[in-house]
Amino acid sequence: MSKIAIVGAGMMGTATSFPLSDNGHDIRLVGTHLDSEIIRSCQEKQVHPRLRRNLPIGVKPYYIDQIVEALDGVEIIVSGVNSHGVHWIGQTLAPCLKPGQIIISVTKGLEAGPDGHLLLLTDVLANELPLSLREQVQMAAIGGPCIAGELAGRRETVVIFGSASSECLDTLANAFRTPYYHIWKTNDITGLEICVALKNAYTLAVGYAAGLLDKQGGLDCAGAHMYNLEAAAFAQGCMEMEHLTRLMGGTSAFAYGPPGAGDFYVTAQGGRSVELGKLLGKGHTYQEARLIMAGETLEAAAIVHQMGKAIPAMTVNGIISETDFPLMRYLVRLVVNNERLEIPLDTFYNYLNPIIRQ
Amino acid sequence: MSKIAIVGAGMMGTATSFPLSDNGHDIRLVGTHLDSEIIRSCQEKQVHPRLRRNLPIGVKPYYIDQIVEALDGVEIIVSGVNSHGVHWIGQTLAPCLKPGQIIISVTKGLEAGPDGHLLLLTDVLANELPLSLREQVQMAAIGGPCIAGELAGRRETVVIFGSASSECLDTLANAFRTPYYHIWKTNDITGLEICVALKNAYTLAVGYAAGLLDKQGGLDCAGAHMYNLEAAAFAQGCMEMEHLTRLMGGTSAFAYGPPGAGDFYVTAQGGRSVELGKLLGKGHTYQEARLIMAGETLEAAAIVHQMGKAIPAMTVNGIISETDFPLMRYLVRLVVNNERLEIPLDTFYNYLNPIIRQ
Repeated sequence: MSKIAIVGAGMMGTATSFPLSDNGHDIRLVGTHLDSEIIRSCQEKQVHPRLRRNLPIGVKPYYIDQIVEALDGVEIIVSGVNSHGVHWIGQTLAPCLKPGQIIISVTKGLEAGPDGHLLLLTDVLANELPLSLREQVQMAAIGGPCIAGELAGRRETVVIFGSASSECLDTLANAFRTPYYHIWKTNDITGLEICVALKNAYTLAVGYAAGLLDKQGGLDCAGAHMYNLEAAAFAQGCMEMEHLTRLMGGTSAFAYGPPGAGDFYVTAQGGRSVELGKLLGKGHTYQEARLIMAGETLEAAAIVHQMGKAIPAMTVNGIISETDFPLMRYLVRLVVNNERLEIPLDTFYNYLNPIIRQ
Repeated sequence: MSKIAIVGAGMMGTATSFPLSDNGHDIRLVGTHLDSEIIRSCQEKQVHPRLRRNLPIGVKPYYIDQIVEALDGVEIIVSGVNSHGVHWIGQTLAPCLKPGQIIISVTKGLEAGPDGHLLLLTDVLANELPLSLREQVQMAAIGGPCIAGELAGRRETVVIFGSASSECLDTLANAFRTPYYHIWKTNDITGLEICVALKNAYTLAVGYAAGLLDKQGGLDCAGAHMYNLEAAAFAQGCMEMEHLTRLMGGTSAFAYGPPGAGDFYVTAQGGRSVELGKLLGKGHTYQEARLIMAGETLEAAAIVHQMGKAIPAMTVNGIISETDFPLMRYLVRLVVNNERLEIPLDTFYNYLNPIIRQ
């Protein structure tokens, strides 16, 4: 039995408490300053309102101002914030951390620095820690196809834990693994984080096709959907995941494994990224769609904004050509430039030898 | 304008008549001996009953006994049969073919020879032709994410045309390409045919997860599906597509392009392979499911049967290890051996370095 803290009481962070509870750990669930209502519900009713489930046994909820108490003596800290909270959690954890602790992140995203250089979110978090501490805690990330509500429902789930340290991975796998929470391990945290971050962006294109169907009047007289268009975008998304993973030194095979095609598949089954894409496909600009979805965390838009900085920088630096990443460039035009335009199918697949268009 | 015959009046063969019609070709749609009702409806009402659409202009329906007349002077022949009809169409076309004609197949599958060696269906068809003729006609295949009903509805669709001959591909692309039918070309017909054949098998596993959800009472109190399990199977399916493609000398990158992940995605959106998988997931044996779906062509079961011959042969010959292709081996046990058993998640991803389980 270990003492484990989850910081960030959103759906995914809290969902990890279910396998941890089943393994008998002492779990402290710490809400951020945005999670006060969730923590109140957890304390008063033992119900997580967004997961719509009772907290599992052994999970004690804490408000953010109790974080020092909550983190006392813990061996593992789950970073359960979204991509907008990564700097914050690094700064918040910094004064509380002890040498030997492990931080494992469920956050999906990448951050483009001022020069457009892409950073993994585990590195962004680590960069907020004092240098001396940075070398004494270990960082890990969770990726792979996992809808939080299904994990909390103890549905069969496959995930990949990534960390530079194999010892850290063993500790984590032992703490989290249950008969329904199937854990694989990788030292390629770069490939893992890139794939799981990008899939949110590319899900916009799948949702776009569904929205376009609505815009054009829904199913036709013979019941035809627009799955062919969804699938065309899905394939291009997988290809661009592979390309960026390869460029950043990750395992390009992840594109057709659980972190890539697997996580992309599950994300395309529904959720906020699909919904945002649908609004764009129906003809709304991103600004309009953002208002319609006010209050929601839109990780898909967040990663597109970051790629909107990274792609031009990579192009100028000669790392990629102007015809590479046509789907991401298109998404940048929709989300960052607020344009309305159709999916540019005829620009796809141009670097999957030996497929050619002309 | 060309003269083009489509032999096999099923949904996919007939769907290709829509872009061909839009390009102004003279099209002859020839039903097989199983398609008489379809041809009758096409002749009497100009309606294709399974596509639930009017035939496009320029398409003339023929019964099988009119095939000599129908094939007279055609430049391109679309083979629209299913995998069970490949020997038949080769034998049927043989006496009618003329040097210089092109045969393009929409058929998805592979065939294991007596020694378990896998053959492409375009080769199976060609092997039915006299040797002298075999060198004077060109073979091609269509793969990629295309639901027939959407193509017939002129929805945006991406496909890959494959042939050893680039000249043949140019002729075909010129004949078929329309603003909604987006055609890419490849000389790697091996990689193309393998991916699009296997995706039908792996879709059984996605359907299985959906059926298991039903068996376990459907959505739980918080609305949780079993998409995590579907996605875990989806990723393993993509990985096994890559593996077989590589073993047979095809382009392994197809696994995350339109022939692999793309075609798999669209197939998993619904259809007979999903339905068959659902029945298995609900707890039916394959024999029971086959009776429930009596009369339906089950390409998913057909390819699993072929792989049930190929996998043991490849294992005995040392081409693969006993732990390779765990998902296909599982599907063989369900479909060929008629067993009931759960998806063996913990055997997956064992050859995607650097992901490890233990």
